[in-house]
Amino acid sequence: MMRTGVHMVRSLCRGPQAISNSITLFPSTGMGQLAAQWTSCIRCRSMAVLPWPFSTQPRDFSLPNSSWGSEMRQQYEHYNSQCEEMTEEGEKKRGPWRRLPSYNRSLKFATGGVYLSKIIQSKARLFTRNIREQGSAFEYVMFVNKEEQKCVCVFQAGHLLEGPPGHVHGGAIATMIDTVTGTHSTYLSGPVMTANLNINYRSPIPLGSTVLLHCSLDKKEGRKTFVTCQVTSSDGSRLHTEATGLFLSINVGHILGV
Amino acid sequence: MMRTGVHMVRSLCRGPQAISNSITLFPSTGMGQLAAQWTSCIRCRSMAVLPWPFSTQPRDFSLPNSSWGSEMRQQYEHYNSQCEEMTEEGEKKRGPWRRLPSYNRSLKFATGGVYLSKIIQSKARLFTRNIREQGSAFEYVMFVNKEEQKCVCVFQAGHLLEGPPGHVHGGAIATMIDTVTGTHSTYLSGPVMTANLNINYRSPIPLGSTVLLHCSLDKKEGRKTFVTCQVTSSDGSRLHTEATGLFLSINVGHILGV
Repeated sequence: MMRTGVHMVRSLCRGPQAISNSITLFPSTGMGQLAAQWTSCIRCRSMAVLPWPFSTQPRDFSLPNSSWGSEMRQQYEHYNSQCEEMTEEGEKKRGPWRRLPSYNRSLKFATGGVYLSKIIQSKARLFTRNIREQGSAFEYVMFVNKEEQKCVCVFQAGHLLEGPPGHVHGGAIATMIDTVTGTHSTYLSGPVMTANLNINYRSPIPLGSTVLLHCSLDKKEGRKTFVTCQVTSSDGSRLHTEATGLFLSINVGHILGV
Repeated sequence: MMRTGVHMVRSLCRGPQAISNSITLFPSTGMGQLAAQWTSCIRCRSMAVLPWPFSTQPRDFSLPNSSWGSEMRQQYEHYNSQCEEMTEEGEKKRGPWRRLPSYNRSLKFATGGVYLSKIIQSKARLFTRNIREQGSAFEYVMFVNKEEQKCVCVFQAGHLLEGPPGHVHGGAIATMIDTVTGTHSTYLSGPVMTANLNINYRSPIPLGSTVLLHCSLDKKEGRKTFVTCQVTSSDGSRLHTEATGLFLSINVGHILGV
């Protein structure tokens, strides 16, 4: 529902001053997207020596793995190849698309006595990345196109996402729609919170198949960001689901619960 | 998205005649709810001896386990105690509420060459019951009240459902809404398919907390069943989420893909 992202990450990277003294932030993934910079902006204000039980190089789940089928790989290559272009002089330059890294943790340790226990927080995992077995649940990668204000997600649905026999659960589809529209809204507007999702299910998605989620900006009005999303078969011939999303911009304090 | 349920189960229990010869059905949970009767209605038409790798007494995930906190247990007891009543003569009789069992498998083996491989189907698990570790993801139990056409779900959100730091992912909330509204619609109208979910997120749900999903029938119009759903704190003081759902009645052949 609530989204952190590039803007929040950038704010934090400028220094810890804006953050309450009672909170110490660790490298985190926010919504699991857009947060590659976190590992470079650790600030330890109130504790000089801290145990750090996790790798400082967390796994990026958006990179290809052996569970990806040919359709998934093909779509990945299609967009990934457009993340970098060659100039006439033979030099590399940034292309129209950008791949978003994706992690599975969002850690927050509170020293000031907040509502959540440290135990729950340290064990918490991003819902869409909570299963270790590759290919069994959500395999996805997102690409954004800043100029066209578009986002595309390639999504391969694993066998643990079943709803009706042989097909993806409506909640798993809603989860991917929330993830993609929320990430895109964050990319466009900074930290946001999901206010509304309106989802029309047109045709079921077979388990094991690869689909595309196309997300576009509809409009921005004050704190509100309106986006649309279509879920199609990877060749675009079949419309599986259509949705609209409304996201509200929030401040960092709201996200951190301070 | 698509829902099987009591009506489908009852049809199947009347005999396999209505089912295509190319399909052999195994005890299944349909949408994981409402299907306790499946184990008693196995029909093996085309194969005399079949391996059965699973227990014939599948685990009912809606029963209390050690991960349930006091709020979850309290709510469970509240509704479960109303599933049976005592008459003036001191005899037991069915109460206004009924607990729905919940399983994690929906198996379908096709001998006639359907689009899905046997491998995917045999490994498939219901999305909301796909994690073994108790308490880590979706802990929930549903109760229906036929007379009042209401359904209540007690839901304890585990640490693997994280979205924003310390809170439940919007997709996990949508998943529970889809599950509860879909199950209730199936209970009221027989096999259905989700056509629309419109979800308004009012306030975030802290990880580890127990909430209630209240689902009511709005109206029925031909093939359409309209329901509403509110997600509240367990004491009812806080509204977390509101949603409407539209479900379309479908025939069994549609569910089985024949």
